[in-house]
Amino acid sequence: MSLLSSTLGRIGALSEEAMRKAEERQARLTKPPGSLGMLEWLSVRLAGIQGRFPPEAERKVIFTLAADHGVAEEGVSAFPREVTKQMVLNFLGGGAAINVLARHAGAEVVVVDMGVAGDVEHERLVSRKVGYGTGNIAKGPAMSREEAVRAIEAGIEVAERVIRERGAHLIGVGDMGIGNTTPSAAVCAAITRRAPEEVTGRGTGIDDAAWERKVRVVRRALELNAPEPEDPVDVLAKVGGYEIGGIAGVILAGAANRVPVLIDGFISGAGALIAGELSPAAREYMLASHLSAEPGHRVMLEHLGLKPLLNLNLRLGEGTGAALAMGIVEASVRVLREMATFDEAGVDEKIC
Amino acid sequence: MSLLSSTLGRIGALSEEAMRKAEERQARLTKPPGSLGMLEWLSVRLAGIQGRFPPEAERKVIFTLAADHGVAEEGVSAFPREVTKQMVLNFLGGGAAINVLARHAGAEVVVVDMGVAGDVEHERLVSRKVGYGTGNIAKGPAMSREEAVRAIEAGIEVAERVIRERGAHLIGVGDMGIGNTTPSAAVCAAITRRAPEEVTGRGTGIDDAAWERKVRVVRRALELNAPEPEDPVDVLAKVGGYEIGGIAGVILAGAANRVPVLIDGFISGAGALIAGELSPAAREYMLASHLSAEPGHRVMLEHLGLKPLLNLNLRLGEGTGAALAMGIVEASVRVLREMATFDEAGVDEKIC
Repeated sequence: MSLLSSTLGRIGALSEEAMRKAEERQARLTKPPGSLGMLEWLSVRLAGIQGRFPPEAERKVIFTLAADHGVAEEGVSAFPREVTKQMVLNFLGGGAAINVLARHAGAEVVVVDMGVAGDVEHERLVSRKVGYGTGNIAKGPAMSREEAVRAIEAGIEVAERVIRERGAHLIGVGDMGIGNTTPSAAVCAAITRRAPEEVTGRGTGIDDAAWERKVRVVRRALELNAPEPEDPVDVLAKVGGYEIGGIAGVILAGAANRVPVLIDGFISGAGALIAGELSPAAREYMLASHLSAEPGHRVMLEHLGLKPLLNLNLRLGEGTGAALAMGIVEASVRVLREMATFDEAGVDEKIC
Repeated sequence: MSLLSSTLGRIGALSEEAMRKAEERQARLTKPPGSLGMLEWLSVRLAGIQGRFPPEAERKVIFTLAADHGVAEEGVSAFPREVTKQMVLNFLGGGAAINVLARHAGAEVVVVDMGVAGDVEHERLVSRKVGYGTGNIAKGPAMSREEAVRAIEAGIEVAERVIRERGAHLIGVGDMGIGNTTPSAAVCAAITRRAPEEVTGRGTGIDDAAWERKVRVVRRALELNAPEPEDPVDVLAKVGGYEIGGIAGVILAGAANRVPVLIDGFISGAGALIAGELSPAAREYMLASHLSAEPGHRVMLEHLGLKPLLNLNLRLGEGTGAALAMGIVEASVRVLREMATFDEAGVDEKIC
């Protein structure tokens, strides 16, 4: 049995018992029932995901997966393709937004080369290169079906190893790849069956003319490659990207290992769509960190049934939204673990 | 000159120079311009408030102001009045939600007794009691005009001392007081000229019958006391509360000392309305931490021109939303201070 199918087979249901215990404790804490809103929901969900009461959120890891995209040659991005490799080096040097926000959250950043168009060597880089950038989806498939499976399995392997070695309680996924909002829009359109113009945004900041070109590229990619919506590996191969496949793999590994996964923005959302189609049960292990400024992100989250924790008009990627939301998730667990109960504090309960 | 009028006189404009420097640095950091959305805006606003580039957000304090309300005898709350004092002791013992969330944010909690109906003694409690609970606003004014000024000035004095002693970079305000969503709804209706039923919510969790009673109480309080919308001290005296006055004072002290103030939920919003009417310039120093589940909170924030950072369906008070949002504000400052620029990281800039 392949790693992908064995991983899918390991994804089970949330623990009803751990969720019940968390709900019972929430009801005894010194606050009006339900008054901490999403924080209460999060603490219960984490207990269910981890199968543990109380849940934990101390050891945190962000996976930032990078790759290049042949479609960048269509002029769909505001930045030159070389920036993917340059930003990977910036991540490894600690100077990017994800480094700052992960430090703030107390999370480690694991940088994975899934397919940067050039050789990058660094002692802290995890190299799982599937290829030197994908094919141009406006002219043919992004990759072969075999490569698509390899990308997903690389994500599974990296995440399983890191989760085991670090004893991670909470992980997040993020991306880097010049041009990658274009394949993400194509993946979104294919799986959610929306029109290209509904799910295509301005990425790093293109003008009207470039946006219209980008919509045409997404439409052409879908017409030319005809991805099969019911077959997520086919969608990934035809119009996806190596880091999108890797992100799907990290998510599936989180679900198989009962580790909650914070989904970042639009590109991570494309990975989450692939993962969620491969395993509807995996959706229960996903937490939507924020609502991206990319218009297609809302469509993705609705399809996945996820409600975003933050709405700060972010559109950077890298895992930045996931890192910011980690602070909220950890807060929810600390409330459950550290607050006094009515009995302990000698506080009267509700009277009506 | 009174402390209140001298404080109002010290509230000046934001520093254009510090904001310009922050904007210039944001444009040189290794990310697409604007891609960190509200985080970029926050870092610029903090520079303008503090009059300092780069701004700082390391030393943080939450002020939790407590008082009782005569109107509690009308059956407008789901909890007995004794809970105000019990919760003050819980804050001082470290077991309440605000303690947990402040620890998570790295903030100190300063608990102030503005008018609890009973004596509370504790070495860490700041006692600035204006009275043993306000009068029942359904039967007469909450307090005299002189008491209203004293409540605001107590908030100013406590905040000025703590800001100076701790060298606080960022403060938050929160409340505790059984029954205090009722005077807050009355303050909101008086100042924003909305109908009682538009701004009255379910507080700690009352049923339909109690909500209808609460709306009638707010309407009667406004008709009977006829607060003058153009005179915020009159509004506070007629239908407010001691902690609402104290919160207004803390906010004004923050503004006068160029310290950004995170406003918590509905009761803090009532204090912010009073502060904002006393000094429209003070609104520039306020940050809305979250959008409360109380329906009147949105009305307050619109009146103040504030956009909430979080929307997590919170309705606890205490400063819990402010503490949670501190993590986001501090993240914005760390991004500005710690990220590499395009030059430093050798990353190419935008091409179109």
